[in-house]
Amino acid sequence: MPLTPPDPDFESRTRASFAKQAAMATIGARLARVAPGEVHIDLPFREDLTQQHGFIHAGILATVLDSACGYAAFTLMPADAGVLSIEFKVNLLAPAHGDVIRVRSRVVRAGRTISVCTADAFAARDGQERHVTTMTATMMTVTGRDNVTG
Amino acid sequence: MPLTPPDPDFESRTRASFAKQAAMATIGARLARVAPGEVHIDLPFREDLTQQHGFIHAGILATVLDSACGYAAFTLMPADAGVLSIEFKVNLLAPAHGDVIRVRSRVVRAGRTISVCTADAFAARDGQERHVTTMTATMMTVTGRDNVTG
Amino acid sequence: MPLTPPDPDFESRTRASFAKQAAMATIGARLARVAPGEVHIDLPFREDLTQQHGFIHAGILATVLDSACGYAAFTLMPADAGVLSIEFKVNLLAPAHGDVIRVRSRVVRAGRTISVCTADAFAARDGQERHVTTMTATMMTVTGRDNVTG
Amino acid sequence: MPLTPPDPDFESRTRASFAKQAAMATIGARLARVAPGEVHIDLPFREDLTQQHGFIHAGILATVLDSACGYAAFTLMPADAGVLSIEFKVNLLAPAHGDVIRVRSRVVRAGRTISVCTADAFAARDGQERHVTTMTATMMTVTGRDNVTG
Repeated sequence: MPLTPPDPDFESRTRASFAKQAAMATIGARLARVAPGEVHIDLPFREDLTQQHGFIHAGILATVLDSACGYAAFTLMPADAGVLSIEFKVNLLAPAHGDVIRVRSRVVRAGRTISVCTADAFAARDGQERHVTTMTATMMTVTGRDNVTG
Repeated sequence: MPLTPPDPDFESRTRASFAKQAAMATIGARLARVAPGEVHIDLPFREDLTQQHGFIHAGILATVLDSACGYAAFTLMPADAGVLSIEFKVNLLAPAHGDVIRVRSRVVRAGRTISVCTADAFAARDGQERHVTTMTATMMTVTGRDNVTG
Repeated sequence: MPLTPPDPDFESRTRASFAKQAAMATIGARLARVAPGEVHIDLPFREDLTQQHGFIHAGILATVLDSACGYAAFTLMPADAGVLSIEFKVNLLAPAHGDVIRVRSRVVRAGRTISVCTADAFAARDGQERHVTTMTATMMTVTGRDNVTG
Repeated sequence: MPLTPPDPDFESRTRASFAKQAAMATIGARLARVAPGEVHIDLPFREDLTQQHGFIHAGILATVLDSACGYAAFTLMPADAGVLSIEFKVNLLAPAHGDVIRVRSRVVRAGRTISVCTADAFAARDGQERHVTTMTATMMTVTGRDNVTG
């Protein structure tokens, strides 16, 4: 499916919104790539993001995956729209440890109101990647009085 | 269903494991209550945990809900077992803002290998609570060679 | 949360729509109760709905749970609206066998566009019930040009 | 990932188990392809499987997707194992109508106890396919006293 963003400035708009997500800065997540219907985010490994076994906490992975899904959908939204997570689900496939967690998302369906996205997280170490988590998420386009972005 | 933990020291074991989750300290989450098949966690509101609209990031909510579900299941596991998240799904019901996010989880089914838990997050302000997120999660009991807790 | 249906004829409207679901008749599901934000459906056990071990197929359970969730949301929608399933997730808790599967759903959040519902299935035999499945579902209110109900 | 089934007779074993799923015969689903970690199922359109708008009921789609996921995992299990659905989630992308619904599943992670699979449903008409549903599912390998297949 060829995806043509209705807003030609989709990349700068997406990067600007990502920069407003304080949680991304707090966990050290970096927006690596923004393309139509596609977003990549990197999360360098940090001890202070782990669970009791020393792996990245599943919820922290979900935080990055959710942002990746939301912004993948956002790239295809009109310039005046905001994006809202309706729901997401993750399956944890393997322990998340390594040098960096690479997250890649893409839009599966871009609707007027509802978009569906998937994202996958890969734990990278020494150039090797391991698939650690997969997400499916539903995103909502909010405009006008529903647009909480103001 | 009356839930009798096989390990009488379930509470101290659960609190000790929670204390090892560095991610919980990083986001400021506090273990409020540990009972058989039930865990409460509080997350005081912090600006540095928000998304672009100033609400707590859905993934940060999921982080707390996932820990709450995992430890609810953990209270009912044998003393030598570890807990692993298999999958979880959240629905976002309302924007998460307020003074503190209160998360309450409970075990729906405690199996030998697989447990299913639910958790709900409520945004509290001035003594009023609003239901903001609900999670269903699948947890796995890991023992012996599968127990990554060492 | 007190739920007041905007359409006073919500019950007959819900029963009429349920009657149009040919799949419900095919599997023998019966609408037992319709209340504001709440629907009960019964599915008598039938051999021809089972999986390889002789239990009701998880997907057939999901079929009933999805209808229950959709119609629970539908009871709270305006008279001219249609309901659409956005997504649902089920956890299978125990094998579904017995005389009848009783499904009970309720609305967790009734939004203008998006509603979130949960439903549980119980396998009943000799007056005893066992919790076999739980669902969380997202439903959409469709009106005007989005309303595929015509 | 190259997937080598531990049981060389995986295909006949899978087809034999599928044949025992009475629900598949009831809805008219046909096992089209069985390969290591991959299963295709076709569901010809039938009026008696529809919801109130004349599309295939989301739960009926989930029934086929669940079987596809379960049997994709089953192809990679030992000869004496049974497969059990732990949970699944579907996102509905577009109305399911057409001549036949084609479902394709594949294993994302094949673990000793837990496997994760995805499946997609496409509505086909006049040689054109439309992506209508996507599922992520968790399957469990059951052996010995847990193996309910007897």
